[in-house]
Amino acid sequence: MAKALSKVLKRKSNFELEKFVVKHQPYDLAEMVTALDFKERIYFFSNVAPETGAEIMENMEPEFQYRILDDVKDHVKISLLNHISSDKVVDLFLAIHPYQAGILMEYLQRDYQDKIKILMSYEANTAGSLASVNYIGARKHWTIEHTLEHVRKVGQNADLVSYIYVIDTHGKLAGVVSIKEIILAQPTVKLEEIAKKDIISALAEQHQEQVADILARYDLVAIPVVDNTKRMIGIINVDDLIDVIHEEATEDIQKLGGSQPLEETYFKNTVWDLFRKRIGWLLILFVAEAYTGNVLRHYEETLDQVIALAFFIPLLIGTGGNSGTQTVTTLVRAMAIGEVEFKDILKVVRKEVSTGLLLGISLGVVAFIRAEFLGVGFDIGSVVAITAICIVIWASLVAAVMPLILHKLRVDPAVVSGPFIATLVDGTGLIIYFSMAKLLLNI
Amino acid sequence: MAKALSKVLKRKSNFELEKFVVKHQPYDLAEMVTALDFKERIYFFSNVAPETGAEIMENMEPEFQYRILDDVKDHVKISLLNHISSDKVVDLFLAIHPYQAGILMEYLQRDYQDKIKILMSYEANTAGSLASVNYIGARKHWTIEHTLEHVRKVGQNADLVSYIYVIDTHGKLAGVVSIKEIILAQPTVKLEEIAKKDIISALAEQHQEQVADILARYDLVAIPVVDNTKRMIGIINVDDLIDVIHEEATEDIQKLGGSQPLEETYFKNTVWDLFRKRIGWLLILFVAEAYTGNVLRHYEETLDQVIALAFFIPLLIGTGGNSGTQTVTTLVRAMAIGEVEFKDILKVVRKEVSTGLLLGISLGVVAFIRAEFLGVGFDIGSVVAITAICIVIWASLVAAVMPLILHKLRVDPAVVSGPFIATLVDGTGLIIYFSMAKLLLNI
Repeated sequence: MAKALSKVLKRKSNFELEKFVVKHQPYDLAEMVTALDFKERIYFFSNVAPETGAEIMENMEPEFQYRILDDVKDHVKISLLNHISSDKVVDLFLAIHPYQAGILMEYLQRDYQDKIKILMSYEANTAGSLASVNYIGARKHWTIEHTLEHVRKVGQNADLVSYIYVIDTHGKLAGVVSIKEIILAQPTVKLEEIAKKDIISALAEQHQEQVADILARYDLVAIPVVDNTKRMIGIINVDDLIDVIHEEATEDIQKLGGSQPLEETYFKNTVWDLFRKRIGWLLILFVAEAYTGNVLRHYEETLDQVIALAFFIPLLIGTGGNSGTQTVTTLVRAMAIGEVEFKDILKVVRKEVSTGLLLGISLGVVAFIRAEFLGVGFDIGSVVAITAICIVIWASLVAAVMPLILHKLRVDPAVVSGPFIATLVDGTGLIIYFSMAKLLLNI
Repeated sequence: MAKALSKVLKRKSNFELEKFVVKHQPYDLAEMVTALDFKERIYFFSNVAPETGAEIMENMEPEFQYRILDDVKDHVKISLLNHISSDKVVDLFLAIHPYQAGILMEYLQRDYQDKIKILMSYEANTAGSLASVNYIGARKHWTIEHTLEHVRKVGQNADLVSYIYVIDTHGKLAGVVSIKEIILAQPTVKLEEIAKKDIISALAEQHQEQVADILARYDLVAIPVVDNTKRMIGIINVDDLIDVIHEEATEDIQKLGGSQPLEETYFKNTVWDLFRKRIGWLLILFVAEAYTGNVLRHYEETLDQVIALAFFIPLLIGTGGNSGTQTVTTLVRAMAIGEVEFKDILKVVRKEVSTGLLLGISLGVVAFIRAEFLGVGFDIGSVVAITAICIVIWASLVAAVMPLILHKLRVDPAVVSGPFIATLVDGTGLIIYFSMAKLLLNI
């Protein structure tokens, strides 16, 4: 594909370039452009319409965007920069060196510079940091006809034309009208007559995950972002929130796997990054797991008398860890998407313990058969089977209760990872095992 | 909130009801209506505008939708049913008893019935099953003016007005125009002049996860669904695909936790459902883990001589499981979102083994100190420390390679769950441990 583009560029015909470009999607064109050589790339961006060039650049990594902007002539730089959606400009400026960002900033118009600076001031992962100022604002007394005229004038630079936002004279968000309502309404109707005043919006400081939830709940295509005084800051489009939903799920998965979430894509993390994200939990769990040594030393005599008991240690504690992991991952996810809350704790415990009982009995039977096959005798077989039942129930209970309690204490329940539950159940499982052994074997 | 609605309903004024309804979001109204009593609910749906009533119902569970439709008079039933988005009608008909669905079907117009029947024929989780026929189609020779007139006529029933689809005389999808382009264009321009012919679409049989990926990649708000002959079947809106993204992440998390994914929300699953989804993997892992018993029996003599070796069994194999889980969850997620592929296997192995080396050394040092504290002597301490290093590296390697190979074999890599890796590493870890012990302790 990149070769086809190279070929077109060689002909030096803007007409053919235009024809090629309209036939492809910006995302695909971005991939092709990345494969071009230096000269071809400059020629491409200098000759393609700036709206198109900007849209293509929006699909690239900030580092690559910067290289392009650094390479092209000043007038191209100005028109590209002013056509890139403002949230992407912010991403770019925050990704490159502040000094480089400062230089690029000068190519923007003065009032646009101010807007970008405000957007850059919001903390990462907040609604403000995702907002784009490329929305269409209108006044409440405008008629539909007037509004459509306005859209025709400024719409080219708008990210998406799904809603028109009614802004009052203080810059406050006063209403929202969908483009569908505008098209369906009579030309003489005023916006205030059809605008929805019960507006779903996000606060600039709100966490992106909450914003994504709101957007999903109300089936919106874009959501306005306001500050504490209801002043409109920008909008977040659904495509940016889809990225957020992916990011947040990735974070939860990494946490459930017992490591701190990575901030970048996998390959952008160095070995050292991976080490830092993993060693913390690994050490905590290691130290916590170390008490299994004390438990075993405590039962050293028992173990010495019946060495066969040792054969089943990994099996029993492993099974506890496995069933605990099943429960905890299911529950943490259910909590993340709002299906389960702390107030459901009794329902959850009842459900998980009942399930644990069924699972435990099934595994207990298999454990007994397994013990017979190892030839350790009926007594030890019974100990192993009964312990299996108890451990599975115990693991289910712990895994059901822990994330709910942490959530109540406002700790992210995803810290209760599979490894966390497995570690917790290992030591307690051993105590159950040896108590059961002493009781049933009379040692 | 539900009480406020009750109050309004008591006044029996359609004007006040309308005033109340426009002030709230359909999602919130759905919650309020659910709390109403039988009579209030019938009154509500009989007096609210059918578009609004339908939009509110779309935010309810199919079972509740059915109860409402079953309760209201025939003319209300007809207008509600014909205003509900077609994908939601399909969901409803598939959720209730076929006999009940058959009766409701009769309230739809004949040609709409046919469309619904086609949509119902697609398998769950395919693009076809999510498609809605409430899109706006147009002909290529229509002018912008004509198109806008058409939108005004049929737009009320459209889900969302973001794109107009150009359909040829054979019903095939021939182009797409965004509503922004339509508003910006001159009234006399023909659609064929501005329609994009390089159309991003989904095939009806395609899996919903792939469709969500396409939509996210190209930043679309809706995606057209076509059959093998390019005939237009319907569109999928971004809000439905957001639900898909959530569902797919939930599935991956549940699989990574070592259970089969649940088909419904947590509380809709009975204890028996949970049991069935979990017992499979639990049994497989149990049987696989059972070989740790054989390993230990094999080293029974060694164990008998130095019982202190048993103290560290849970610690060492637990740590292997933990670091393996960290690696596998990170990688499986990276593969799910397309960051890592099989061809990266060498890069991944290098990265994970290096990280494993760093992690292993850190834990090895701690393990040695821990062994000293338990007072087992320098020799056993060394065995434990060296084993810790080896086990972490081994677990990292296995966890890096397994999901990539499974992916290559076209098995869903998410089956390599944390518990799976932990189990795999337990037995092999024991072999490493006792080999090391025999070697270093000369027993």
